[in-house]
Amino acid sequence: MRMITGATRLYAIVGDPIAQAKSPQIYNARLEAAGVDAALVPWRLSAEAFDIGMRGLICAGNLDGLVFTYPHKQAALAFADIVTQRARQVGACNAMRRRGDGRWEADMFDGVGLVRALQDAGRPVAGETVWLVGAGGAGRAIAFALAEAGARRLHVTDIEIERSACIVEDVTAAHPQCEARASTPRLEEIGVLINATTVGLDGGDASPIDSVAGLPAGLAVVDIVPREDTALLALARRSGCRTVSGAAMIAGQAQAVLDFFADAG
Amino acid sequence: MRMITGATRLYAIVGDPIAQAKSPQIYNARLEAAGVDAALVPWRLSAEAFDIGMRGLICAGNLDGLVFTYPHKQAALAFADIVTQRARQVGACNAMRRRGDGRWEADMFDGVGLVRALQDAGRPVAGETVWLVGAGGAGRAIAFALAEAGARRLHVTDIEIERSACIVEDVTAAHPQCEARASTPRLEEIGVLINATTVGLDGGDASPIDSVAGLPAGLAVVDIVPREDTALLALARRSGCRTVSGAAMIAGQAQAVLDFFADAG
Repeated sequence: MRMITGATRLYAIVGDPIAQAKSPQIYNARLEAAGVDAALVPWRLSAEAFDIGMRGLICAGNLDGLVFTYPHKQAALAFADIVTQRARQVGACNAMRRRGDGRWEADMFDGVGLVRALQDAGRPVAGETVWLVGAGGAGRAIAFALAEAGARRLHVTDIEIERSACIVEDVTAAHPQCEARASTPRLEEIGVLINATTVGLDGGDASPIDSVAGLPAGLAVVDIVPREDTALLALARRSGCRTVSGAAMIAGQAQAVLDFFADAG
Repeated sequence: MRMITGATRLYAIVGDPIAQAKSPQIYNARLEAAGVDAALVPWRLSAEAFDIGMRGLICAGNLDGLVFTYPHKQAALAFADIVTQRARQVGACNAMRRRGDGRWEADMFDGVGLVRALQDAGRPVAGETVWLVGAGGAGRAIAFALAEAGARRLHVTDIEIERSACIVEDVTAAHPQCEARASTPRLEEIGVLINATTVGLDGGDASPIDSVAGLPAGLAVVDIVPREDTALLALARRSGCRTVSGAAMIAGQAQAVLDFFADAG
């Protein structure tokens, strides 16, 4: 990448841990390709240090944007002067930008990245019936993004039934045109299957859905786990399904965040 | 330079303004050449934001060192758990490192860089008689570094006589073996002439010393102004003197600071 000089503008990705984060390479490669003299640097803040660290970050005059990862996506909202409706609904943000007027604006692109990646894979979610497995923080952001992008029906399941019910209730309130249910569909009913749990992160045969011999070939399968070789993706490829990996989702999200940063006014 | 990843360790240079600073290129080129996965990033903090900004910086878990430039070199001392004798004597620091035990240690390398650059130019200051023109913050750091490196006699002048007197008194107290005076020497008495004022920064004919047709060829001439074409350096080159420019001083200082960072224990 180009040399960092005194004039280079900064972005930081704030999390703990941070050393394993793939975002810096992805963002910096895109900034470089776009000919922008800016860099995204990793920034490790523990949950205990987050408030003091954030107060310091936002008063750095050459820092124009922040990206948030675990465990700060909820706590970061308190530092925004403006919170987009989407981020408010999800209750979390993954990006903040310094606007031209000096105010910090928070938005949430976690689900947006997945929607973009599906679109890039030739499977826009508008009108689709989607099964979302996993109703944690990632699942919540994805559910709102799917509804916002026009998904017609959304099934949400989680081993903790209360979490699915909570997402379904909130998505229904925000996007009544999307029919959301805390229920397990038959595979034949759905067009898109999304794993938003951490099952598969450690490799091996574990799958977020019950064991089946194959999947309908028309299904699009998304696995947010950041590896290409999960059991679910392997099954999907064997079945002839279109697949979207965690890496593709992160790439889609990175471009959405960089567009957000570039358009700060 | 190499791509910044999540595992890249960070240093920051804190100042206001910062866009014109040459240090990021110099430090990053050296880190790159040494094969170290670390980057120095510019960090703009106004004087008003300095306290809040510093509290934030020092709690970032992947930030291992700080470099200070105008106007923060004095104020930074308050954030150090340990202050070296040299930095305490000068009353300012230009670098802080996070030690292995977690404590932040401040030191002052501004004058050290100049002493190193003179040594690299074949003119060690031990035993020398030096005329230091300019008794501001830079002059003060340089005076202590010269005395520490064994200069035998030090003449300090400034348009504000109180500033020269103050440096002379403090240097004498700390380094009684160095004979310091607030006086203007004859050019034939000295071995090294140092401009530590900002005269020459804007280009043109202005010189920090009274107009002379030439300088003794045996004189070593240092100009801390960060440009190669000052009137003083031009006169020195015409006179056959060895010269050390501001850029050479910054390079010497950068290596001293990087050694300090690398040896954090």
